[in-house]
Amino acid sequence: MDCVFCKIVKKEIPTEFLHEDELVVAFRDINPIAPAHVLVIPKKHIGSVADVSESDEKLMGRMILSAKRIAEDLKISGNGYKLLFRVGRHGGQEVGHLHLHLIGGAKLSENIRPVT
Amino acid sequence: MDCVFCKIVKKEIPTEFLHEDELVVAFRDINPIAPAHVLVIPKKHIGSVADVSESDEKLMGRMILSAKRIAEDLKISGNGYKLLFRVGRHGGQEVGHLHLHLIGGAKLSENIRPVT
Repeated sequence: MDCVFCKIVKKEIPTEFLHEDELVVAFRDINPIAPAHVLVIPKKHIGSVADVSESDEKLMGRMILSAKRIAEDLKISGNGYKLLFRVGRHGGQEVGHLHLHLIGGAKLSENIRPVT
Repeated sequence: MDCVFCKIVKKEIPTEFLHEDELVVAFRDINPIAPAHVLVIPKKHIGSVADVSESDEKLMGRMILSAKRIAEDLKISGNGYKLLFRVGRHGGQEVGHLHLHLIGGAKLSENIRPVT
């Protein structure tokens, strides 16, 4: 399968991991939109949140907990951050392998609205 | 404790639930920013993602899975949506009881950036 995030998981694309365990890995977004911008992804290929199954509850919890711990490691937790899943076309998803955005390191403005 | 979301959980503030199980409830945001805007919250009081503990992995997974199923129920899953945790001051959190935003029902524009 020609999935860039699967290649990162398999270390075919050299990437510095901020976290790795048996379920997930985390690395910096190559196009950061804030001083801290990290992606947490499952090691197994899942297309998006819309594709997770009931048996993935533990995995999804691990993704959130991993992001929370990484925020602490990066010393951005006290001030706060955003955790964001973009899902599908309306959600603005850009890579077809499930990923959670950890965005922080500065006070953030946010504008999410329907395209008119 | 004077937490508005705890009052919703305890049904002291009458609210239509889109989902309820032993861990979480879900209801529509009273100030929606999109045609579909739902909040999924834990029944127990947790301040924010920054306050979850290792033992909350199952709960966090349940929050994500619940949002995913609600998106299917609302028929907004095929086109996509966003799932968002705002955490703390920099993240723009407005209520001090952990909540996950499910935002969809239209193609969404998104602009998240540091306040300059």
